[in-house]
Amino acid sequence: MARIVKKFGGTSVGDVERIRNVAGKIKRAVDEGHEVAVVVSAMAGTTNQLVAFCREASMMHDAREYDTVVAAGEQITIGLLSICLQEIGISARSFLGWQVPIRTNNQHGAARIIEIDPANIEACFKDGRVAIVAGFQGIGPDNRITTLGRGGSDTSAVALAAALKADRCDIYTDVEGVYTTDPRIVPKARKLDKITYEEMLEMASLGAKVLHTRSVALAMRYGVRTQVLSSFVDKPGTLVVNEDETVEQQVVSGIAYTRGEAKVTLVKVPDLPGQVANIFRPLARENINVDMIVQTASEHGGHTDVTFTVPEDDLKRCVKALEDTKGELKFDHLHFDDNVAKVSVVGVGMRSHTGVAQKMFDTLAEKGINIQVISTSEIKISVLIDSEYTELAVRALHTAYGLDSE
Amino acid sequence: MARIVKKFGGTSVGDVERIRNVAGKIKRAVDEGHEVAVVVSAMAGTTNQLVAFCREASMMHDAREYDTVVAAGEQITIGLLSICLQEIGISARSFLGWQVPIRTNNQHGAARIIEIDPANIEACFKDGRVAIVAGFQGIGPDNRITTLGRGGSDTSAVALAAALKADRCDIYTDVEGVYTTDPRIVPKARKLDKITYEEMLEMASLGAKVLHTRSVALAMRYGVRTQVLSSFVDKPGTLVVNEDETVEQQVVSGIAYTRGEAKVTLVKVPDLPGQVANIFRPLARENINVDMIVQTASEHGGHTDVTFTVPEDDLKRCVKALEDTKGELKFDHLHFDDNVAKVSVVGVGMRSHTGVAQKMFDTLAEKGINIQVISTSEIKISVLIDSEYTELAVRALHTAYGLDSE
Repeated sequence: MARIVKKFGGTSVGDVERIRNVAGKIKRAVDEGHEVAVVVSAMAGTTNQLVAFCREASMMHDAREYDTVVAAGEQITIGLLSICLQEIGISARSFLGWQVPIRTNNQHGAARIIEIDPANIEACFKDGRVAIVAGFQGIGPDNRITTLGRGGSDTSAVALAAALKADRCDIYTDVEGVYTTDPRIVPKARKLDKITYEEMLEMASLGAKVLHTRSVALAMRYGVRTQVLSSFVDKPGTLVVNEDETVEQQVVSGIAYTRGEAKVTLVKVPDLPGQVANIFRPLARENINVDMIVQTASEHGGHTDVTFTVPEDDLKRCVKALEDTKGELKFDHLHFDDNVAKVSVVGVGMRSHTGVAQKMFDTLAEKGINIQVISTSEIKISVLIDSEYTELAVRALHTAYGLDSE
Repeated sequence: MARIVKKFGGTSVGDVERIRNVAGKIKRAVDEGHEVAVVVSAMAGTTNQLVAFCREASMMHDAREYDTVVAAGEQITIGLLSICLQEIGISARSFLGWQVPIRTNNQHGAARIIEIDPANIEACFKDGRVAIVAGFQGIGPDNRITTLGRGGSDTSAVALAAALKADRCDIYTDVEGVYTTDPRIVPKARKLDKITYEEMLEMASLGAKVLHTRSVALAMRYGVRTQVLSSFVDKPGTLVVNEDETVEQQVVSGIAYTRGEAKVTLVKVPDLPGQVANIFRPLARENINVDMIVQTASEHGGHTDVTFTVPEDDLKRCVKALEDTKGELKFDHLHFDDNVAKVSVVGVGMRSHTGVAQKMFDTLAEKGINIQVISTSEIKISVLIDSEYTELAVRALHTAYGLDSE
């Protein structure tokens, strides 16, 4: 007998028929003797409708009221799923965020989970019942409903699994697991049986949209064994685990890419101490996340060029913030380019292997792809390239690192 | 400065544009210096959709889960109305049933309000804010969401007004108030400025669909001055008040009718003590509400006929329950007729006036309308007639009692 948390997203519970399908999956786990808690999202489309209502009411809506409105979505799903389970003879009861309770901070619209009291859910298990928990929502210190923001339901599920000391957290999605790269670009992409938290974190933040970074970070912190699997196909998915659980390490586990960033270059910045801090201060003030940063060696007589990337959506605000402080920063001019893509090679194995970066540079050079910026961490190497070479680069790297299936 | 509870039904909050219109009405009351609490229903259509989901999930759904699902409807409206109020500069905050709290018993799906703690709403008033409360819902002793069943939001509003010792409870509907009779049948029907609780209770239970009986009974019990008015037309409505507040009493205030009942006659029932009780026991067991009852004088040698009416929707179950106990009841046979209408003359003035009933019988006789059953209370006289004479009877009585306008 294991204790398992299962999470189903909006597509998996898109209508009553699909909710019934989910109930069937849960029944199987119960019949196998497991204790099961389920976290669900709102039915696909519901949250968007509710958000649209709020926007129609006011573009500057009170986040507390917004939370009250959108949290209704998950409330509907938990009741319906409980009913569907009871219908097939499985004892179940629903829990809203405040009923668990899932305590969060007061940051309405993007709240962080502070504590989950497992007592009520455990009492539910003791009674032989399945607990159905509303994802994405909690209760703040003001006794009002909060929502967790992007990736909320995945985060609810992993946090609940941690609180319940669950043996596993199954995240059901519309893909069969985590792939070595995007199968739409590389048909030979392979589903991974296992991936480490660190790798998943890089893959998630680099644009593989399977699991939200936030939930992966939480899973890593509390050591929650997390499985990503399909709610439509009945197959094992990808297990996200500690490094020591991966038996045979691949040097490189996957190739990730994102087109969602833009490159900004400040030309002829005076090469003085503290100058880089001055550049990024106005961006931090604007809450703009800077990713890759490169400073060229000083060569124009005490001047350098500083290049960095920001999320494409923030480009306009970024450029404005920099132009506004131009007098202070004293750069000559700036140019930007949103026609770029970041391609990354990820793998914990590269810690103990040399030549991984070299192979990446060689492979791209062979294909005539120019590297604009490079950044590295212990377990990944990222390069910024011209956006139109994205598919070519991903495919070439996938083959070069021996990731192609068969 | 007064303390006012305002209630808006599903049609009044049918979309964001209408919710904005409601916000405008509330703003006016706030600008006049009043303390305002607002009770709202779900957006028109939402509750039906949610109920349909529950039915699709299972015809035998757990009432607790049903309550969780359908209560989401009002949750959406309170948030949106708060946002719309803030948008026009009125400070407001929403309260779910459990946040007020509105404590109910555990009868999920048809819960009764036990207690409303006014402290949170009063704190809201103290901060100069409007309180927006979800109608139709509360929290049970099991710490789960309950719903109040039919007429729920009206009941929430009146109960809240009682708890807050409000000066008035305004119930906004799609009609301009309470009329002397149905204006669709009698174009000369007049809107009443005032009506007593007792009269309203009779009108409500007799089929004038303005206010649910349950909320009128509650208003009477706690002396809540209740106004019925239109949310689309800006005019005073009808005030439901104590008898001592009505200055010039009409003998008859209105003519009500309903086609929703059916007549059942048991022929040749042995005329023995306890026999009537035996007849109605199986119906009570089935929760069937018996309304008018007539027992004819014993004339077939120790046998009587017993006639009564039941809600048309319960007719089938009623007949089955009686046939099942036929051996025990020993009646000869039964016949039923759902082609009947109950027409009633209502007015507290008839307590001190004679000849009211006589006028009713004379009027119907003049039109050649046969009276099948008669039942009376202190303030109303009801007759059961053939359904096809309904309009004729209502119009004739409206004229006979001097209720026609001009």
